[in-house]
Amino acid sequence: MSYVIGLDYGTNSVRAIVVRTADGAEIGTSVWNYAHGDAGIIIDSRDTNLARHHPKDYIDGCEAVMKGAVADATKREPGFTAAKIIGIGVDTTGSTPLPVDKEGTPLAFKAQFADNPAACAWLWKDHTSHREAVEITSLAAKMRPQFLAKCGESYSSEWYWSKLLHCARTAPEVFDAAYTWVEVTDWVPAFLTGTESPAKLKRGICAAGHKAMFHTSWGGYPDVEFLVALDPRLERVRKNLPDVAYSVKDVAGGLTADWAKRTGLPAGVPVAVGAFDAHTGGIGAGIGEGDLVKIIGTSTCDLMAVPFARKMPDIPGVTGVVPEAILPNYHGIEAGQSAVGDIFNWFVNRIAPGGKEMGSHAELTRAAEKLVPGESGLVVLDWHNGNRTVIGDQRLSGVIMGLSLYTTPAEIYRALIEATAFGSRAIMERLEEYGQKVTQIINCGGISVKNPLVMQIYADVMARPIKISRSAQTSALGSAIAGAVVAGKAAGGWDTFEEAMTAMTGTLPEEFHPIPANVAIYEELYRLYMQLHNDFGVKTSPAGASGNYHAMKELLNIKDRVRSGK
Amino acid sequence: MSYVIGLDYGTNSVRAIVVRTADGAEIGTSVWNYAHGDAGIIIDSRDTNLARHHPKDYIDGCEAVMKGAVADATKREPGFTAAKIIGIGVDTTGSTPLPVDKEGTPLAFKAQFADNPAACAWLWKDHTSHREAVEITSLAAKMRPQFLAKCGESYSSEWYWSKLLHCARTAPEVFDAAYTWVEVTDWVPAFLTGTESPAKLKRGICAAGHKAMFHTSWGGYPDVEFLVALDPRLERVRKNLPDVAYSVKDVAGGLTADWAKRTGLPAGVPVAVGAFDAHTGGIGAGIGEGDLVKIIGTSTCDLMAVPFARKMPDIPGVTGVVPEAILPNYHGIEAGQSAVGDIFNWFVNRIAPGGKEMGSHAELTRAAEKLVPGESGLVVLDWHNGNRTVIGDQRLSGVIMGLSLYTTPAEIYRALIEATAFGSRAIMERLEEYGQKVTQIINCGGISVKNPLVMQIYADVMARPIKISRSAQTSALGSAIAGAVVAGKAAGGWDTFEEAMTAMTGTLPEEFHPIPANVAIYEELYRLYMQLHNDFGVKTSPAGASGNYHAMKELLNIKDRVRSGK
Repeated sequence: MSYVIGLDYGTNSVRAIVVRTADGAEIGTSVWNYAHGDAGIIIDSRDTNLARHHPKDYIDGCEAVMKGAVADATKREPGFTAAKIIGIGVDTTGSTPLPVDKEGTPLAFKAQFADNPAACAWLWKDHTSHREAVEITSLAAKMRPQFLAKCGESYSSEWYWSKLLHCARTAPEVFDAAYTWVEVTDWVPAFLTGTESPAKLKRGICAAGHKAMFHTSWGGYPDVEFLVALDPRLERVRKNLPDVAYSVKDVAGGLTADWAKRTGLPAGVPVAVGAFDAHTGGIGAGIGEGDLVKIIGTSTCDLMAVPFARKMPDIPGVTGVVPEAILPNYHGIEAGQSAVGDIFNWFVNRIAPGGKEMGSHAELTRAAEKLVPGESGLVVLDWHNGNRTVIGDQRLSGVIMGLSLYTTPAEIYRALIEATAFGSRAIMERLEEYGQKVTQIINCGGISVKNPLVMQIYADVMARPIKISRSAQTSALGSAIAGAVVAGKAAGGWDTFEEAMTAMTGTLPEEFHPIPANVAIYEELYRLYMQLHNDFGVKTSPAGASGNYHAMKELLNIKDRVRSGK
Repeated sequence: MSYVIGLDYGTNSVRAIVVRTADGAEIGTSVWNYAHGDAGIIIDSRDTNLARHHPKDYIDGCEAVMKGAVADATKREPGFTAAKIIGIGVDTTGSTPLPVDKEGTPLAFKAQFADNPAACAWLWKDHTSHREAVEITSLAAKMRPQFLAKCGESYSSEWYWSKLLHCARTAPEVFDAAYTWVEVTDWVPAFLTGTESPAKLKRGICAAGHKAMFHTSWGGYPDVEFLVALDPRLERVRKNLPDVAYSVKDVAGGLTADWAKRTGLPAGVPVAVGAFDAHTGGIGAGIGEGDLVKIIGTSTCDLMAVPFARKMPDIPGVTGVVPEAILPNYHGIEAGQSAVGDIFNWFVNRIAPGGKEMGSHAELTRAAEKLVPGESGLVVLDWHNGNRTVIGDQRLSGVIMGLSLYTTPAEIYRALIEATAFGSRAIMERLEEYGQKVTQIINCGGISVKNPLVMQIYADVMARPIKISRSAQTSALGSAIAGAVVAGKAAGGWDTFEEAMTAMTGTLPEEFHPIPANVAIYEELYRLYMQLHNDFGVKTSPAGASGNYHAMKELLNIKDRVRSGK
């Protein structure tokens, strides 16, 4: 019997699982909460857009969860030993770029940057770069429209170049000291395999293609002329970047002797090139042609895999269409929602309705279950953290319409769930509009397993049957599968992702089927949602005359001005 | 020394105060919570529009608070005895019509209607009649535009004829059994003075003029032709109504021997004709020309008094312009907001944010005080109970725009306060647009005294200095003043309201002055509020094409349909 490890770096914690390569059984697990900041996130009360990770948490967490998962597996699985681990895969959030020096050492580890959040990893949900995102989008629209066509016509404040540019302008001391910026998803396999040096480090296509405008059709990363038009200082950054990118079928390197010693694993165990958690989640869900895989967590990613043989149009509004971002020989489509679980958590933890006993997710779910669609008279825009797809505007904000003096926490909670389902349907409709027929939906992530109400609402709103991945840790499982594939069949793993997914993934017996009466009401409510969506979210006239788009943005401008004291 | 009693019937309770006629000192007080329903209100979980009072609570409460206030005064005021009370005034909520038989006995007291909420008093905030209100408005627009000109161009679901018509259609057994419908503000003085019989009962101009389209220029109540065009059954109702109405300077009658015995007051003490709480609140605030008096409670009433000598235009959107509705020889202007304190209470009691310790009004106020205008990035529409002025549409609902994952309960609480201030400013701007210059604002009611933050926000948003009535019970004080005037100077009272108000009312030394920096930000936020206000609240095209007006209404239609199971 052989085993693999999947390492999954989330927003607040890191997890490792030990998985049987034969059948995908998860036989050991361990979680470590990041030690820095507020629940692991370094924030700034004067600027709610800021969200950073300290890279020390990645290393400390790695050791803790690898040891923890191995110990757990040793206890639970007869015959298991750490020596039987044949491969490791890694996934992380992203785009989460980290400034490093010429040796690949994070600037955050240096004394002079110890208290500088700009030297930390810029977490995916950091939106400080929203102005730079607009600037990149409008320059690309003029100079390089092909760049935008691959990322849904809008470059995001969550992404690599926005963040670098913002750093250059607001923390030049960090920008100048950084030899290059490495996505955390590339940096973790590098430090495990001693390939942190930028000369050796393998960058993954998942991060490069989705977040840094890397595409083989224009020779990799954006050209110097384009970057210099944004800021001349980007020329140096571009020159330190490679012209190739790798996929999860590739080996980043072998586990170093130091990490072998720290964890008890065999030295030299192959570590796969890293990918984003959503994309390995697609693998862990067993993604195939026609599947819409939804990784539902704090935010949501929607994935489809389209065989190279099929025609693949550009799709406006999706986060990206990138060859091999999920699987070898498939185009990967990524779309998503900037906040889903985070919205439910906002309501439960920040608003904390109904006192401590009544306001838990479980209690609110129980009360929300008793409501029928439409009876609350509420429609919500699920933009508490902006809109990723199909509008692509991180500065949008949440709206609740229909409040009365009788509106209850359970009604709001249900309306928040419904809003995320409507947002999800808007994504599916965009994909289908561009020829990507969805034959089944597979949901993954904790909420999918834990909250049948959410799943039923999704089935009713999207009017499709919904399956749930049998793994509660699909991203980590997908990483583990990558570990099994880079190990290869000869070593006790698998030679292809198709073989590995067939053996190691599956869905739960319980499926959620649309209830016709609910589908009918949600059809109406979805139209109202889209009314607000298009009114608040989309400039409907070239002159920008749509009143509420303008109103929402002006309100944010006032907020920014007041908070910055200007 | 002589004394008067003011009786003040609110939404959840009734209060009596004993007042010195010489200087307005409130020397005895007592409150009684209505015994029926949910906090005194009979509701229907299937129809959140329904809100009724049981008339037994009016009688039981009357006895309890008269005795209680007298006992309190006896304890606190040396030399006071019940025998020194020379007059009584009464105010109530409204329009709160009560169906009665030919003797003036409420149908709710009869066995066959014991469990029928239609036989109860239809509380002001009962909105079951929203369709009838639309029907009356559109018929009047065609047949009797003069009716609408006096009530802001829109007849409300909160008002007399909407409620009667809805009863005729949904509870014909009650409608047919009712000889007439009496406003509670008329019925209370009637039962105290033994004049309940419709033949003897004096109806007040305040209720008749503001809520039942009574105006001397067209001979009192609406004509039979108009009413029959609504429903032929209204002919009988109209024929049982008188052609005159009285003001608070008039005596409803003398206290009956039975009530004298129950309360210890002298039999025969004059009881003034009743008026609405808001209007007697204007008297209790010492209203004069150029004053905008705001009675801020669960809802808010805005009042101005305009001398008969001055030209008085019709003002679209205000609740009404009625001669002598507040003071003799003055036009009374009434405008208002359907919910103010109710919105804050909704948030504290229904949403109950932050757990029991953190979510009180006091705690939320303390936290909201630390925020500066604009920093929350929130704008709210204060329409949780519809919009009374300037749109006049009870079916509108509340909206929150600008939510983020970091939005806190204190930010929402402050935004709710700001929203009610914006609504208040919209009313003031409408009044001034029609020539009613506001030279000072006098705020009354519990919130005015208890919450300086709310008052400062109002001063900043309205950009006017704000005075606070020194009485915390302005409505009850105004009723007491009416009691003093109907008693007359010879008996130890006063001969005119001007004399009485000069002696018996005043404002607190502390005034609230606009803070220029806040005024500037609120100017911007108010523009955004009005953007949403006009988008969600007003049909901007004759074809009703405005998207969000339509969306908000359609959402309510879905809610109504789902709740009624159709």
